[in-house]
Amino acid sequence: MSILVVGSMAYDTVETPQERRERQLGGAATFFALAAGADAEVRVVAVVGHDFEPSHLELLTARGVDLAGVEHADGPSFHWSGRYHADFIERDTLATELGVFADFRPQVPEAWRASEYVFLANIHPSLQRQVLEEVETPRLVALDTMNLWIETTREELLGILPQVDVLMVNDSEARLLSGERSLTAAAETIKGFGPSRVVIKKGEHGAVLFGRDSVLSVPALILPDVKDPTGAGDSFAGGFMAALARADADRNSDDAPYRAAMLDGTVTASFVPEAFSVEGLIACEDGAAATRLATLRTMMIP
Amino acid sequence: MSILVVGSMAYDTVETPQERRERQLGGAATFFALAAGADAEVRVVAVVGHDFEPSHLELLTARGVDLAGVEHADGPSFHWSGRYHADFIERDTLATELGVFADFRPQVPEAWRASEYVFLANIHPSLQRQVLEEVETPRLVALDTMNLWIETTREELLGILPQVDVLMVNDSEARLLSGERSLTAAAETIKGFGPSRVVIKKGEHGAVLFGRDSVLSVPALILPDVKDPTGAGDSFAGGFMAALARADADRNSDDAPYRAAMLDGTVTASFVPEAFSVEGLIACEDGAAATRLATLRTMMIP
Repeated sequence: MSILVVGSMAYDTVETPQERRERQLGGAATFFALAAGADAEVRVVAVVGHDFEPSHLELLTARGVDLAGVEHADGPSFHWSGRYHADFIERDTLATELGVFADFRPQVPEAWRASEYVFLANIHPSLQRQVLEEVETPRLVALDTMNLWIETTREELLGILPQVDVLMVNDSEARLLSGERSLTAAAETIKGFGPSRVVIKKGEHGAVLFGRDSVLSVPALILPDVKDPTGAGDSFAGGFMAALARADADRNSDDAPYRAAMLDGTVTASFVPEAFSVEGLIACEDGAAATRLATLRTMMIP
Repeated sequence: MSILVVGSMAYDTVETPQERRERQLGGAATFFALAAGADAEVRVVAVVGHDFEPSHLELLTARGVDLAGVEHADGPSFHWSGRYHADFIERDTLATELGVFADFRPQVPEAWRASEYVFLANIHPSLQRQVLEEVETPRLVALDTMNLWIETTREELLGILPQVDVLMVNDSEARLLSGERSLTAAAETIKGFGPSRVVIKKGEHGAVLFGRDSVLSVPALILPDVKDPTGAGDSFAGGFMAALARADADRNSDDAPYRAAMLDGTVTASFVPEAFSVEGLIACEDGAAATRLATLRTMMIP
């Protein structure tokens, strides 16, 4: 099965209370693609600049990720710089240098137009719309967004939500988008905008699926050490979408595969904060995910 | 079975973004006792002032709570005043008037010395110790505390923890007490202080049991409307302890009854934020808890 993602491939400068890392590999599409794993045919639509290291592209292709939709543009790659607070939840953005992303017009290669699963990572809604227009009848579309787009491009965002099956946002974004404080009310309001399912990510507090007929709350795995949570949300989405694709689920499936996919997303995301950049994801050995899935189940089943 | 609680009976002035309520019935022992319910023989050791309304005492006795350990002192009752932030998680204490609580010396009635279950609600550790010295071989002792005591009376607190079986605190308190950021590490450190089990309460993010051999993460029920979360933590403790008592559990039991009790605590606590003061707890009708328990299970079991 094929999973298409559009989103950033970037360099991140990350400061934590313990450490600072300059220009490490990052970007929503990067994390998503690595997290979705080698089982699926993962296709990336993105743009990189002249400074994007070939070794970073090779890292992705070596793991089976198809980069035929990655444009190579003249200019610097997208660069995000941020500082985490002591709680590793709050963070301040210190700089956002769009670089080649400023003029990015995503183009879905002809051969990818029939992609089955589509993840619109957190980018300007007009770019998300462009990709949606270039794919034909996908089986499932999921979308992530952020406070910036909810505040500045609300109408454009609302314009594409009817074509989205699963909205994946964090709790503050869900509240901002819906105008509701209660997550139940927020999810109901968002469903009224189009998506039939809403996944609300809460970082170390886990994630909640508001399915068609049911709700599932999944705790995050409790990590002994957190180094850098950047990319955990996109990796959750990668694990989640890959699980849905493996289960051959589509928008008309009942909640069961979505509930199961929440656990896969949680387990996949759990490898990210333990190391900087994508290191935790790529260091993850065979069997480690199965062990964590078993642990997660014992944390959940009373 | 008998459950003894020592803690505050108080009046609370609560401000939320929507509303302000003056001098409503509150206090950890009040919430705990009402939450522990009519099944158990609930015994309260506390002090009230001359201004404590007889109708509030009757409210408790009518629900089977034994107030023989409540001292009536000359002076004003304990009064807490606080303001909740928009998120209903953070709150600022505006005033703490100890009143008769300042000179409180808890006395356990002779007939209560063989109480089986003991909950030391959040008060000065020296008062918690005094009660512990006056009970004989309880089957289980649980203790709550707060940042103030962890910071100002740390040695006294550490002095009684070896006699405590279950420490029940919120996440910031667990971190402060242990000096660990990770909740796993925090729970391990706290177990080293004495308690064999640690319950970490996280408000709307649920609660985590660090049992003897297992961990269970329980989400909070998602409420459509929050009015006043004051007392939810103590009500969690009441539901939790009552469930342990019903299950005839003691400190040597395996984790199973503790895991089950986490759900009872969660369900009991869920009635509190929906109304001011103890109104949600006392309005809870027969069958409502069973319905919520079923909902909670569908939210937890993948």
